[in-house]
Amino acid sequence: MRIVLAARAPIFLQTLLMAATTQPEPLDSARGFDLAGFLKTRTERVNRALNRFLPKATTKPQTIHRAMRYSLFAGGKRMRPALCLAAAQACGGRESDALPAACAVECIHTYSLIHDDLPAMDNDDFRRGKPTNHKVFGEGIAVLAGDGLLTLAFEIAARARATPRYPHARLILELARAAGSRQLVAGQVADLEGEGKSLSVPELRYIHQRKTSALLSCAVRLGGMSANCTPAQLEALTAFGRNVGLAFQVIDDILDVTQTSECLGKTAGKDTAARKATYPAIVGLGPSRRIARQLTERAFRALEMFPGEAQTLRALAAFLLHRQT
Amino acid sequence: MRIVLAARAPIFLQTLLMAATTQPEPLDSARGFDLAGFLKTRTERVNRALNRFLPKATTKPQTIHRAMRYSLFAGGKRMRPALCLAAAQACGGRESDALPAACAVECIHTYSLIHDDLPAMDNDDFRRGKPTNHKVFGEGIAVLAGDGLLTLAFEIAARARATPRYPHARLILELARAAGSRQLVAGQVADLEGEGKSLSVPELRYIHQRKTSALLSCAVRLGGMSANCTPAQLEALTAFGRNVGLAFQVIDDILDVTQTSECLGKTAGKDTAARKATYPAIVGLGPSRRIARQLTERAFRALEMFPGEAQTLRALAAFLLHRQT
Repeated sequence: MRIVLAARAPIFLQTLLMAATTQPEPLDSARGFDLAGFLKTRTERVNRALNRFLPKATTKPQTIHRAMRYSLFAGGKRMRPALCLAAAQACGGRESDALPAACAVECIHTYSLIHDDLPAMDNDDFRRGKPTNHKVFGEGIAVLAGDGLLTLAFEIAARARATPRYPHARLILELARAAGSRQLVAGQVADLEGEGKSLSVPELRYIHQRKTSALLSCAVRLGGMSANCTPAQLEALTAFGRNVGLAFQVIDDILDVTQTSECLGKTAGKDTAARKATYPAIVGLGPSRRIARQLTERAFRALEMFPGEAQTLRALAAFLLHRQT
Repeated sequence: MRIVLAARAPIFLQTLLMAATTQPEPLDSARGFDLAGFLKTRTERVNRALNRFLPKATTKPQTIHRAMRYSLFAGGKRMRPALCLAAAQACGGRESDALPAACAVECIHTYSLIHDDLPAMDNDDFRRGKPTNHKVFGEGIAVLAGDGLLTLAFEIAARARATPRYPHARLILELARAAGSRQLVAGQVADLEGEGKSLSVPELRYIHQRKTSALLSCAVRLGGMSANCTPAQLEALTAFGRNVGLAFQVIDDILDVTQTSECLGKTAGKDTAARKATYPAIVGLGPSRRIARQLTERAFRALEMFPGEAQTLRALAAFLLHRQT
């Protein structure tokens, strides 16, 4: 496995190198693919597109647009957009056609973080190494900045290019369902309600499926749809997204207990402090790592139908498994 | 002017009768049209549709669906849906085709009330005579219930019937813009930021235009679009919606200082207590009433192009001008 790191790559990209050097050859993932280069160029591309889609910071009322931009450009790793673009690529589509969907999903992801960080929810003071939105702008504006980003996501999705199999109504339904009260919002509700309770693995998976996997899977599916993918391809992308999403959250739980706040850019040990159920707490650290590996292997198997086994998606899944932040 | 009141009509409908008996013949509005009957049947119809669109209260996680339903079925007057259906009718369309848009707008209206009532915003304990969402379910769930309703609005809009002139992308854009950070959210931001400041009439109108008029106008426009209205009809509906929306908010300001909390079902005198700028505070009560009348007259003039001068829309505008709650 050979990974080419861009010069002066951001810290999070260096986890790629760590993965390559500190782990045993894990899931023969990257196969010489320049994932760091892919992530760097796509992050820049997505950031430029988001900058175009968002009202300028000088647009009245400035407070709300500054607040929306503050969280959206706080250094997010743009993993969901990267997965969306890579899915489009895997289905033979153009990344430019997937760009609006990628940006829409990122707006929804950012809104959910702003609202989750509120004092009435997880009450977090730091996110990505910076004070959370409500610490900077106050709670009222933070609620509204989230509302603004959620609404903007649909405006952006309405500007996406529809395809013969996937008209706008279908794209909007896809996004609304993933973000709605049965999925993303449901995950946060279950997470809130689960605090201090002893949960079983299926109950924890219910939360992870909704809180993380639904939107991540949606990003991958929308990428495929932008390429007018076949129903069989969509099914494969769904299985890939679901498993990568679940693995992502198991890894998040592991990092919460193994990493420092400084490294994560958010408060580490938060889950334990809030008496939240996590994989390491329920099944232990070693078994949690095995579960994350198994989920990633399942995600890989879902890609077998794609030409070249969709190497970018594969490399992204491996990267997410081995990340240290 | 003859208004037929349905037997045992809700209190708010009785304002129709009050308007007819206590005011001088104002803006020859209803012309014998049975507005009370229209509102009763359409409220029932919209409620049935909303009930179908919303996840059941038993859908997991139950808390969020109970919270969403609590505010959505708290006795709202369904004025925006009524305007949406009446606009469809004015353009020769079927009300059933406008029903999804009417429900989507009502979900957005309800979400905005839940978030506006939060302690970090207007901090209201009562709405429509009942405890506000966060008083019943807690702040975290109230934020999420608002998020769920906002998201659901786009899911519902994606299920609306598109027409040749107005495909789904256009309908979603319409809704997202009206609800977004330049309109509805902007209005709430400006309202928050204006507290305790002495505002001019144009500044106050800026707030009203965004906080109330944008979504009300959107309801009317989407009604027209569901009937595949002509560009000229859409322009007329826009002028109607804008003026009715502005009049609506001037009347709201007036009622805040002239009515009791019991009558309004929410805390009266709230604007004065929060040192919010209002029309009565800036220009006085008499001139405020004249402004509301002038705006309604302008709304009437916008309807002149419609057959029968769109008598339902006309009756609704007159009703909103003379309402006492």
